[in-house]
Amino acid sequence: MLPNETHVEKVQRKLEKKQRAVRIALGLEKADLVLKNANYLNVFSNEFCRGDIAVADGLIVGMGEYTSDTELDASQGIVCPGFIDAHIHLESSLVTPWEFARAVIPHGTTTVITDPHEITNVMGLQGIDYMLAASAGLPMDVHFMLPSCVPATPQDESGAELDYRSIDPYFDHPRVLGLAEMMNYVGVVNQDAQSIRKILCSQAHHKKIDGHAPGLTGHALNAYIAAGVYSDHECFTLDNALEKLRKGQFIMIREGTAAHNLEALLPLLSPQFYSRVMFATDDKHPSDLMRGGHIDHIVRKAVALGADPILALKAATHNAARYFLMNNKGAIAPGYLADLIVINNLQDFHVETVIKKGKIVYADGQTAPFPKPDIPSPLREDAINTMHLPAVTADDLQTSRPLACLGLIPRELITSDLGFEPHADIQRDILKLCVVERHRNTGHIGIGYLHGYGLKQGAVATSIAHDSHNIIAVGVDDADIATAVNQVRQMGGGIAVVCGGKALHSLPLSIAGLISDQPLEHVNMQLEAAKSDAVSLGVKPGIDPFMTLSFLSLPVIPALRVTTRGVFHVERQEYL
Amino acid sequence: MLPNETHVEKVQRKLEKKQRAVRIALGLEKADLVLKNANYLNVFSNEFCRGDIAVADGLIVGMGEYTSDTELDASQGIVCPGFIDAHIHLESSLVTPWEFARAVIPHGTTTVITDPHEITNVMGLQGIDYMLAASAGLPMDVHFMLPSCVPATPQDESGAELDYRSIDPYFDHPRVLGLAEMMNYVGVVNQDAQSIRKILCSQAHHKKIDGHAPGLTGHALNAYIAAGVYSDHECFTLDNALEKLRKGQFIMIREGTAAHNLEALLPLLSPQFYSRVMFATDDKHPSDLMRGGHIDHIVRKAVALGADPILALKAATHNAARYFLMNNKGAIAPGYLADLIVINNLQDFHVETVIKKGKIVYADGQTAPFPKPDIPSPLREDAINTMHLPAVTADDLQTSRPLACLGLIPRELITSDLGFEPHADIQRDILKLCVVERHRNTGHIGIGYLHGYGLKQGAVATSIAHDSHNIIAVGVDDADIATAVNQVRQMGGGIAVVCGGKALHSLPLSIAGLISDQPLEHVNMQLEAAKSDAVSLGVKPGIDPFMTLSFLSLPVIPALRVTTRGVFHVERQEYL
Repeated sequence: MLPNETHVEKVQRKLEKKQRAVRIALGLEKADLVLKNANYLNVFSNEFCRGDIAVADGLIVGMGEYTSDTELDASQGIVCPGFIDAHIHLESSLVTPWEFARAVIPHGTTTVITDPHEITNVMGLQGIDYMLAASAGLPMDVHFMLPSCVPATPQDESGAELDYRSIDPYFDHPRVLGLAEMMNYVGVVNQDAQSIRKILCSQAHHKKIDGHAPGLTGHALNAYIAAGVYSDHECFTLDNALEKLRKGQFIMIREGTAAHNLEALLPLLSPQFYSRVMFATDDKHPSDLMRGGHIDHIVRKAVALGADPILALKAATHNAARYFLMNNKGAIAPGYLADLIVINNLQDFHVETVIKKGKIVYADGQTAPFPKPDIPSPLREDAINTMHLPAVTADDLQTSRPLACLGLIPRELITSDLGFEPHADIQRDILKLCVVERHRNTGHIGIGYLHGYGLKQGAVATSIAHDSHNIIAVGVDDADIATAVNQVRQMGGGIAVVCGGKALHSLPLSIAGLISDQPLEHVNMQLEAAKSDAVSLGVKPGIDPFMTLSFLSLPVIPALRVTTRGVFHVERQEYL
Repeated sequence: MLPNETHVEKVQRKLEKKQRAVRIALGLEKADLVLKNANYLNVFSNEFCRGDIAVADGLIVGMGEYTSDTELDASQGIVCPGFIDAHIHLESSLVTPWEFARAVIPHGTTTVITDPHEITNVMGLQGIDYMLAASAGLPMDVHFMLPSCVPATPQDESGAELDYRSIDPYFDHPRVLGLAEMMNYVGVVNQDAQSIRKILCSQAHHKKIDGHAPGLTGHALNAYIAAGVYSDHECFTLDNALEKLRKGQFIMIREGTAAHNLEALLPLLSPQFYSRVMFATDDKHPSDLMRGGHIDHIVRKAVALGADPILALKAATHNAARYFLMNNKGAIAPGYLADLIVINNLQDFHVETVIKKGKIVYADGQTAPFPKPDIPSPLREDAINTMHLPAVTADDLQTSRPLACLGLIPRELITSDLGFEPHADIQRDILKLCVVERHRNTGHIGIGYLHGYGLKQGAVATSIAHDSHNIIAVGVDDADIATAVNQVRQMGGGIAVVCGGKALHSLPLSIAGLISDQPLEHVNMQLEAAKSDAVSLGVKPGIDPFMTLSFLSLPVIPALRVTTRGVFHVERQEYL
């Protein structure tokens, strides 16, 4: 209902809109927009059809012969429904949803389904509110799945604890499509009441529940699916994907910045299986956002690897809409949203024009300007005020006891258990690793050692530290570590590189310590400069100085992690 | 929520049910039922898979290896999801939903979607209430689409007039899936506010709108679909079906007692198109219900005609569930309802076992007994008290003016316009045809003449007279017509055959004048006996004496119809 609108007025408004759509479909009135002589993907008959596509009030009303004062010659390219990213954490882009939209609209993305897991671990429900506000009214629909695991584990000291009752009201929001990836699959399989209640909650609202269960198989997978988990985006082997698909889960083929599962899962894009398959990125970092593309990139790659273009395009559009019950998306037919893209051909998938709800939002290499969403000021204030910790001194980081040492393994997220170390030792590449609680001024600092990072001087700190996003820092001496932590604190969150007591390049992430308020290009430049600084201080080639750090506090990946309470042995589920 | 259950108790009950499902899926506890070593249809991977199927609390919880105290050896047959009839008017069976369920469960039907259009034209909202009550708790799910056209046309004097506000509350009923066939496609295309508001109403509840638009094509079809009509079951040519499918409508292939569209539409059951296709019967008369089967019959016929069995089975199960958003139906996978059937093979499709919500309801040729639904007595009273008309005398039917004459055309529903006749004339096969208003004691009687029916003596009357279900009668003299009408009136509705002032065989249809309270076998016997009587009085071979009559008052089929207000010229939209 519009503001101040009565029920009768609402019905009347909708009636008049529909009557106009009917008249335009009949050809009695001119359409708002017509794509003339389009060669368009018909997702129902699995073929390309030719005709004018008429649009009225943001909806497609007919294909055939139509006229409009705004006609777009579509005779040369191929018209498809807009692309849908079925699963992403928008925070991973380090920019606001507005900046993210600016980056991906030229790649034909008209809908993303985000899980605001990161910001919610910092700000709780306020984090969901913030992302909803920050993504409202964009020329790209941002739908939400509600974070299912805040905190991610009992070991986490996060900014909030959300039970099923606290997320329940959010399911009524028109942009919320369900419960986000149920990472606590162990909990579900062990009949954990809290996890299952969240699933029940989403089901009670007739909404979806996404899964996250790498490698889960057999009876345990049956149990997880029987509990009500409808999809998975963590398949990296074809066998596991096929088992999940056969057992009824929709499969999101993930091809993002970190994970690349398309090649392994390509056989899913066959007539036998593809109708249960869609695409997701999970995360897109700034540099990756600026080159290569988004869902268009996945389609291009899939077809280059041999997939049928129609199947790949349906996975990128129609199938995600069906899974999420977005009933008016993902097809070119009367009554569907006019979220349309024009691509040049079925090899390049170069996006030439993007139409969102019947408006041309990208054409001739230019994105039409669109306003930044209006975020209520209390929410804005809260978002830039999430660093709740006292300044740290070198003394706070001193320790006389030997502490457990994590061993980095090149190109892996897992770490090795290297026993105990008495102190840092640059010669042997033993660095001090700290996690400083930053949500509630508890003063908690967990300390351990790290081997394999390579730093020879200074320190690095970041407030992106999965999933609680405390401040994680690594360095050669306590003073520089303290300086780096304090630099992050002072910026209101971000990434800092420090040497000899002086801050080098840093990247402020003032929104919840996760997101910059700056343009993507600027963020990328700052990030790359900070990365160079870290490398110049000794970080080994092949190691991303910040991303590597950001996973070292996630107490679900074996063998060792550092939390605010010390070094945690994941397999033994105990502190060392 | 169960009666007297608090919210907390409800959550706890659901939690415990789900925890038990998880434990059984894990194999930690025995299942309620296991189909051992089943060869089952996997609708996701489009193949047959082998394994045990475990059921707990009515839901499938896993496939693999499972045990139970109730194990069913399924190694010999093929296990499929239960069949779904996507569109039927249950009233057409002339028996109660309970009797209908008894007839079709042995054929593997576990779900039907009914449109109580007939009874609602008689009883209004009470008709919907009655059918909801009469179909509650059966071992076959009866879902509802709300009648969209009551009365069917402005010419109809029906028992009720329902606008969008009156049906609105019914969309909240858990068994209501949307708005039934929008027969007034002319109204929709002409932007009729009342029709479009009903569509808006169903959309506001996120429910479906079925279509009914025989032959509609081009811009008018675009308009109808753009207005929000998502399916069609009136396709009798492949071209029309393909146009509707390409434009986004789901196609219900209709193969019932009256209409046989499967053969013409068989090419839809190909990999290119089948995912948007399902099966429906629309109507099933008693004799047809007693032989031949139901949806199993359509599958059998489709495969005999050359369709791929997997595609035919998916059209009969999975696809209808997807269209109607019955998210836990139409597949064999964890979390889905255990609505399962065992068929003998992929040629006969002979149903050997039927499992509804995890309970064996049909096996070894026997249907497990199930109770008749409890219908609240005021509703029951109203249903058997729908004949509101004074007794008719021969004088009431007298007329001195010439009246228009309808010409029957063999094997067609349309009639010809045979001009005017001064009186009935057996020699020339001119009979008197009357429609007597029976809902509101108006005393309205519409009179015309009929050629081609063949009656040589006596009269026939029936209270099944589409769509208003007044009493339609035909006869050689006014006295016998009056007797037949009065016989119908006296039975509380039904079909009567009369000769020389004496009632021959008749079929009482005491529930709303449409449905018998007797067993199917008995109804069929009575109906056939009455039919024989009518034939013995002269009705021509090839003419169904009652069905033919029942369409002669439907003022949408050209050229002429008789309503309570006289003979109506459909094309000219005027009374003669």
